Amino acid sequence: MSDMNGPGPEVFGSSGGRILPVGRSVTVEVPASSANLGPGFDALGVALGLYDAITVTTIESGLELEVTGEGAGEVPEDASHLVAKAVEAGLRAGGVGVPGVRISCHNAIPHSRGLGSSASAAVGGLVAANGLMDGALTAEHLVQLSSEFEGHPDNAAASVLGGVVVSWTERSATAVNYRAVRMEVDPSIVATVLVPSETSSTAQTRGLLPATVPHEDAAFNASRAALMSVALATHPEFLVAATEDRLHQSYRAPALVATTEWVTRLRERGFAATVSGAGPTVLVLGTSGLPSDLRDLAEAQGWRVLDLRIADGARVVAAE
Amino acid sequence: MSDMNGPGPEVFGSSGGRILPVGRSVTVEVPASSANLGPGFDALGVALGLYDAITVTTIESGLELEVTGEGAGEVPEDASHLVAKAVEAGLRAGGVGVPGVRISCHNAIPHSRGLGSSASAAVGGLVAANGLMDGALTAEHLVQLSSEFEGHPDNAAASVLGGVVVSWTERSATAVNYRAVRMEVDPSIVATVLVPSETSSTAQTRGLLPATVPHEDAAFNASRAALMSVALATHPEFLVAATEDRLHQSYRAPALVATTEWVTRLRERGFAATVSGAGPTVLVLGTSGLPSDLRDLAEAQGWRVLDLRIADGARVVAAE
Repeated sequence: MSDMNGPGPEVFGSSGGRILPVGRSVTVEVPASSANLGPGFDALGVALGLYDAITVTTIESGLELEVTGEGAGEVPEDASHLVAKAVEAGLRAGGVGVPGVRISCHNAIPHSRGLGSSASAAVGGLVAANGLMDGALTAEHLVQLSSEFEGHPDNAAASVLGGVVVSWTERSATAVNYRAVRMEVDPSIVATVLVPSETSSTAQTRGLLPATVPHEDAAFNASRAALMSVALATHPEFLVAATEDRLHQSYRAPALVATTEWVTRLRERGFAATVSGAGPTVLVLGTSGLPSDLRDLAEAQGWRVLDLRIADGARVVAAE
Repeated sequence: MSDMNGPGPEVFGSSGGRILPVGRSVTVEVPASSANLGPGFDALGVALGLYDAITVTTIESGLELEVTGEGAGEVPEDASHLVAKAVEAGLRAGGVGVPGVRISCHNAIPHSRGLGSSASAAVGGLVAANGLMDGALTAEHLVQLSSEFEGHPDNAAASVLGGVVVSWTERSATAVNYRAVRMEVDPSIVATVLVPSETSSTAQTRGLLPATVPHEDAAFNASRAALMSVALATHPEFLVAATEDRLHQSYRAPALVATTEWVTRLRERGFAATVSGAGPTVLVLGTSGLPSDLRDLAEAQGWRVLDLRIADGARVVAAE
């Protein structure tokens, strides 16, 4: 955790650079996110108005961690905690150290449901560190650093930039660059998520994907991914057609039975429903919420049904 | 060609419906088009400011055909001519017949070069028929009818709707519906095409495509297709990244050696170059034209280098 190679006393972050004084504090709100949006496998992501709040305070020494809400008691409350790692990565990237740090996480984003909670934790820690450093890191830096935690940029870029993002990865012999751009979204589009009580493992569902796919399925997804950008920006009437997918959802369906049933039911009723990330949450994008009969049925089956606005990116909401 | 099942004398178009008087005439300008634009295989198309002009006049009997410019003497000048078939299909769709028709085609769009000349012929004939019928057919009708000639909507929809279109196909048990929507394009984006003297066969190059592709290549193209919509609309600085493709160009490269060399050369110089349709023309999209050294080199090698604006769709330019 601490950098023992540098001179001087043990610090959190970069020991070779500027040391921040004790008593600085920033609070960050970081949105949840949903990835894929149907055709945009590992590429499209949307920030959703469900927030973790993270307060980072510089203290005299050591690491103090407090987690309330989602994940409390289930995640490690030490230096291996993702937010702590992200705060340190952010400080190092800015060339800044602190003698000690207290991190308080008040989590509302459910874990292991396909709502990007890990990406939100990484983004929240990085944006908090950036707040302590008065914004030394650009949005591009934050996309890069947060995506390095995940190995892909779709959720992380959405939580950094907000709105709907298209992300991609540029690989060279010496670097992996995570890129993303926020796209135009018709302001009438809202999201509804159906969150089950059961969790899902991204690693497990990712293993269900085939090594190869028919060329026509690849072309199919390319057409729908292009259409998705247009549907989101100016033609929400095409959201159902634009969210069709042949690259991941059908392959993962055996591991996501209830989720797949709901995606099918909603699509048959004319709603642009997709599996959120690797599931098991269902994401619906449209210009209206769900009708009460579907909402009641889902809730009777134990799903939480949340209407969420498309959110802006993570931001500092308090600093002292 | 004519409908012998209906009552009355032989007519061109629909014999059961309204018969147009002799002496009506419309002239249509129909733009060329380029398909795929890199990642959007069979989905993305752009209308280009290079036009065929088609004049259709109702006469007392028979079919008279005249072709000047590109394709003169090389295409059949009888009822099997694509423009004649499209005029008749348009009249039939509108429930209209004519006692006879004279069709004059003044063609500027090179044939068999990947510039959509067949789609333009179909669109031009349909729009001319629609002009004779005072616009009985909607743009959606025209996309459907013109795409039926081709079996795919990318070029045809671009020549109907103009601009850049994303198109897709909805198949049911009873119908194949060709759909397309014109997307927003930054007005600073212009096209340059490099047209070789040699022709190419779409059927032949299509045969080079594999039955299956790696899942990661499919996901790659979906990400770039989504990015392409964003790059065209608001972020032309991402056009080079957005036009990357792994679904068709590399597979067809053995049949398109000179084209591939130019695409590679231009991309290495930072231009968003792709194979236009199935080739052999090269399409470059960007906010500036090509520098003179590249232009001179291409022309010295026998390529025609044309700067073309992104065009509106086919339209009636004269009627009497």
